[in-house]
Amino acid sequence: MPSHTEQSAVTVLGLGPMGRALAGAFLDAGLRTTVWNRTPGRDRELVERGAVGVPSPEAAVAASALTVICVVNYDAVDAIVRRDAVADALKGRTIANLTADTPDRARNAAAWAAEHGIGYLDGAIMTPTTTIGTPAAVFLHSGPEEIYREHRPVLDALGGTHTHLGEEVGRAAAYDIALLDIFWTAMAGYAHALAVARAEGITARELAPFAKGIGAILPPIFEQAAEEVDSGGFSGEGNPITSAVSSMAHIVHTSEAHGIDAGVMRAAEGLARRAIGRGHGTDGFLRITEILNPR
Amino acid sequence: MPSHTEQSAVTVLGLGPMGRALAGAFLDAGLRTTVWNRTPGRDRELVERGAVGVPSPEAAVAASALTVICVVNYDAVDAIVRRDAVADALKGRTIANLTADTPDRARNAAAWAAEHGIGYLDGAIMTPTTTIGTPAAVFLHSGPEEIYREHRPVLDALGGTHTHLGEEVGRAAAYDIALLDIFWTAMAGYAHALAVARAEGITARELAPFAKGIGAILPPIFEQAAEEVDSGGFSGEGNPITSAVSSMAHIVHTSEAHGIDAGVMRAAEGLARRAIGRGHGTDGFLRITEILNPR
Repeated sequence: MPSHTEQSAVTVLGLGPMGRALAGAFLDAGLRTTVWNRTPGRDRELVERGAVGVPSPEAAVAASALTVICVVNYDAVDAIVRRDAVADALKGRTIANLTADTPDRARNAAAWAAEHGIGYLDGAIMTPTTTIGTPAAVFLHSGPEEIYREHRPVLDALGGTHTHLGEEVGRAAAYDIALLDIFWTAMAGYAHALAVARAEGITARELAPFAKGIGAILPPIFEQAAEEVDSGGFSGEGNPITSAVSSMAHIVHTSEAHGIDAGVMRAAEGLARRAIGRGHGTDGFLRITEILNPR
Repeated sequence: MPSHTEQSAVTVLGLGPMGRALAGAFLDAGLRTTVWNRTPGRDRELVERGAVGVPSPEAAVAASALTVICVVNYDAVDAIVRRDAVADALKGRTIANLTADTPDRARNAAAWAAEHGIGYLDGAIMTPTTTIGTPAAVFLHSGPEEIYREHRPVLDALGGTHTHLGEEVGRAAAYDIALLDIFWTAMAGYAHALAVARAEGITARELAPFAKGIGAILPPIFEQAAEEVDSGGFSGEGNPITSAVSSMAHIVHTSEAHGIDAGVMRAAEGLARRAIGRGHGTDGFLRITEILNPR
């Protein structure tokens, strides 16, 4: 039954740390896994584990109904797939592009795929390489639901939770961008806090238990705030923007008194002061979401 | 036994939302609680619950061995206590200053108190008013251990956990600044993420479950990173700064394509690019803690 064989086969393009983790999970799930990487040699361990290594991306994509691609960005995706030989080999097959980039690039890639008769799903991987193949992995997908349903059994071999966010193909990248925005801004805040703490004679280990405590209060605050933001009500009850700005000014002052760049906090404080300047001083801090959005 | 009476009495100066919560917890614990607020009338509900309302701060501080003060900032503290009548009444007694401000201001307040023969503890309240009097409250204290031990039974009436961070009186404010730095930077990231999500047609409620997931991975990352930062090792294993900068650039691009100010992320990206420029591109993101600290 060749169609069954092809159904339980998958190709992985790109064998960086994440690509290798994806291919490894497919192998562990017993799928016939074909792999290719621009720089040769990266497939060695995977081939030893049973993967089929091939010399070209066109040979790789021809081996499976579904090709998963995960490389550094969409420029790298385009450099691999936007060549006649590869596009021809992909015709009638599907790409699941798990590379991280912007929603615009995802839409552009989907348009190119449609022009070439190629099925296209866009996705984002929200968890580190070590989670792949485990229940902790989190995958977001967008694109045609029919194509998603068809390939879901293969994607499920990657473990974790898979969420189809809708047919609008940029949706997965948009979630990815928003979630990484939270993550990297928070990490910048943590790095800055550690620098200020050190200047005050506090080690990272001393701060860590309290930093964990702050981290732990964020998820419920995120959830509660979401209700407020959608309904356009920004109750500052107990914690108005004016109070946040007072804290921010203390942070900037202490930081700069130690010669530590406070640019991130200065930018955040500027947004809060704009909200106050527009008469929203008694609102909650999330009012700045409105200030940010020009519409 | 007048000394016992005085021991189990406390004065609260400042009856904003936090001051009222503190006084309420003292009342609930059965302490004789004297209250005063610059703007009259704020003590009504507390007096109905048994608090003693007095017309002046000097009368208030004279009523108890320990005065807890929690107002908007140290300028407000100074306006209340740095007057001869109040300083005279405080002589031989103790202030626990739970007002938020900078470590420098805390040291300055302690020096003033020492000059006037007043015991001084500095502190920070890390949790919202609703936690006061409950196990969820978190208090940080610094200043002379002997004075802290003496008044700890009264402070315990506020519920929650109390940590004495050391004799260096600026320590509580320094922790407060560092922890608020994490909190408000993360909140700025969340507000920005919600704005970008909305521009992409994603509601806050739709993003919230995933935002909660991002929030939940922060505490263990904070803890693990603390070990690295103290030891000066910044392993970028699986997630080098170059990869973070790639994500940050996508966030800035998507944000600005929607006309949304990306100043916070641009500042964070700038720090990361400085780390890369100094040859740390393969290190982990927390390397920017070193870049920030001029020493």
